[in-house]
Amino acid sequence: MQVAVLAHESFPDRAKTAVGLLRYGDHEVRALVDREHAGKHVTDVLPGVQDAPIVASMDDVPEVDALLIGIAPIGGAFDESWRDDVRTALERGCDVLAGLHDFLEDDDEFVRLAEEHGGELHDLRKPPDDLTVAEGTAGEVDATVVTTVGTDCSTGKMTASFEIRDAARERGLDAAVVPTGQTGVAITGWGIVVDRVIADYAAGAVERLVETPEDKDVLIVEGQGALAHPAYSGVTTSILHGSAPDALVLCHNAGQEAIHGYESFTIPPLDEYVEIYERLAAPISDATVDAGMLNTSALDAADAVDAVATYREALGVPATDPVRDGVPDEVLDAIL
Amino acid sequence: MQVAVLAHESFPDRAKTAVGLLRYGDHEVRALVDREHAGKHVTDVLPGVQDAPIVASMDDVPEVDALLIGIAPIGGAFDESWRDDVRTALERGCDVLAGLHDFLEDDDEFVRLAEEHGGELHDLRKPPDDLTVAEGTAGEVDATVVTTVGTDCSTGKMTASFEIRDAARERGLDAAVVPTGQTGVAITGWGIVVDRVIADYAAGAVERLVETPEDKDVLIVEGQGALAHPAYSGVTTSILHGSAPDALVLCHNAGQEAIHGYESFTIPPLDEYVEIYERLAAPISDATVDAGMLNTSALDAADAVDAVATYREALGVPATDPVRDGVPDEVLDAIL
Repeated sequence: MQVAVLAHESFPDRAKTAVGLLRYGDHEVRALVDREHAGKHVTDVLPGVQDAPIVASMDDVPEVDALLIGIAPIGGAFDESWRDDVRTALERGCDVLAGLHDFLEDDDEFVRLAEEHGGELHDLRKPPDDLTVAEGTAGEVDATVVTTVGTDCSTGKMTASFEIRDAARERGLDAAVVPTGQTGVAITGWGIVVDRVIADYAAGAVERLVETPEDKDVLIVEGQGALAHPAYSGVTTSILHGSAPDALVLCHNAGQEAIHGYESFTIPPLDEYVEIYERLAAPISDATVDAGMLNTSALDAADAVDAVATYREALGVPATDPVRDGVPDEVLDAIL
Repeated sequence: MQVAVLAHESFPDRAKTAVGLLRYGDHEVRALVDREHAGKHVTDVLPGVQDAPIVASMDDVPEVDALLIGIAPIGGAFDESWRDDVRTALERGCDVLAGLHDFLEDDDEFVRLAEEHGGELHDLRKPPDDLTVAEGTAGEVDATVVTTVGTDCSTGKMTASFEIRDAARERGLDAAVVPTGQTGVAITGWGIVVDRVIADYAAGAVERLVETPEDKDVLIVEGQGALAHPAYSGVTTSILHGSAPDALVLCHNAGQEAIHGYESFTIPPLDEYVEIYERLAAPISDATVDAGMLNTSALDAADAVDAVATYREALGVPATDPVRDGVPDEVLDAIL
């Protein structure tokens, strides 16, 4: 599929979906729509991913099949400054995909334009209608199930999941990411956005996801939120228990000391944080934190090496920055 | 309000809502509708609560304002064997209240009958439209916040909450229960059924509830589920963090060893379970388990005394069976 990705004034740091699509997706990104960086190319701003021109609006995008909303703001609201681009895309007959709490399908203008011009609206955050409570059966899955967890939101859990997938595939294993957020769903084309599911069914949704792929060697479940997060810890717990993992991988931003946006809540010491995850996992699947993933994007190369070493020591298990260094054998061995 | 309560073939053990209404509610219950026990009185089956005749169907109920569905089956589905009674109630112009996952308002026949005869349909499980993510502010509430938690679902958390309320009131304190389930909402007339909220907003819903009552001395937050439950632990976590409690009270059924309905999951040893709760609470509000509540309804009086003593020893804090013995000073002192 040929797509344009909308990321106004948010690329790359506040446009996780856009970055994920450019780095791990199977779609051909023909343009990034960002009025802030218009005129540049994607790799001028973010090296090492699929390149594409950055344009100011949908008017400047070449022919594409779909426009993907590549921003996931806190709260998930639709920003009215994106309306012109979505309108233009629909008038051109494109599909529009979004992972927002505000559904495109609830917007009368978008519904009308989609009908008139033959495009489709895809709300990636909309859960299936037939979810149920978990049955507690995810632990029976044959594949090795690895769940990524974090010290906060946006610590690289999705990135770590895809990097583990790629490293396992390089070893000849049949590995798949189990996507639980809008970016992962957008990248892979399947999954459930678990934080949108009603709370009673959240673990059940994860259980269904883990039981969906057949004959895999390794499933990497994308975690969400964090156990010490005052708002999102419930989702984290539902994924931790609903996936019944064999192993956990703890993701952290180097140097981060407080929960982002909730600065009065400090991130617990790492060894303590590991113990919180393991204590809570124990009654369901007895998983331990077997590896660490550190996001060192704010550091230079030398400091990054030191930071990974320090992180490794704090956790007592192999660690890596998966973006900078990939997933070395030692880390993959610890996980599998 | 004068009400009838529907509890077919479920009273009292599988009709928590009915029992709660009879024990703690302000409504006058004029009849319990239960084809199994028809002809008896409520107190023949369950001593120590508001009495009422038990009748076989809504046809035998004297004049009332409303029919309340007093059963909350696993999964929360509407049972078609209740349809005749709901139909009769609506034809008589009564309101109908239910805390099911299946909404009365989504049933065409009920909507039509309510409109025709002037009754109202109240889906107590339906959350407000304007919920948001938690802001992490519940800890700033002036009242002492006590959250009841459990080793499983149906361990008496709601009962414990109301008994603590009543004991605090007897001491002259202004105390209120913060209801998070359909029964508590039905009894008190306010609250949010948290397990029905989308997962991202569950902690936010609890935060809003805790911040709603003004000038209270004590708020007792009704917990849900259990941290070692394979399906409901996410809701438990959202309440634990969203309420930012000062104290936790652990509820348990004497002698229970496995999660009900998930028998392959054993309940962790009590001291370990306490530590799981405290470890997870620590990053948000540092609450500890300060008292225990034991449901000894399956035991005789002598065994109950022993069971409470054993429970107290396992937890290392004061304990009681609130139904049998109320909430003694020692327990209330430990909590407040």
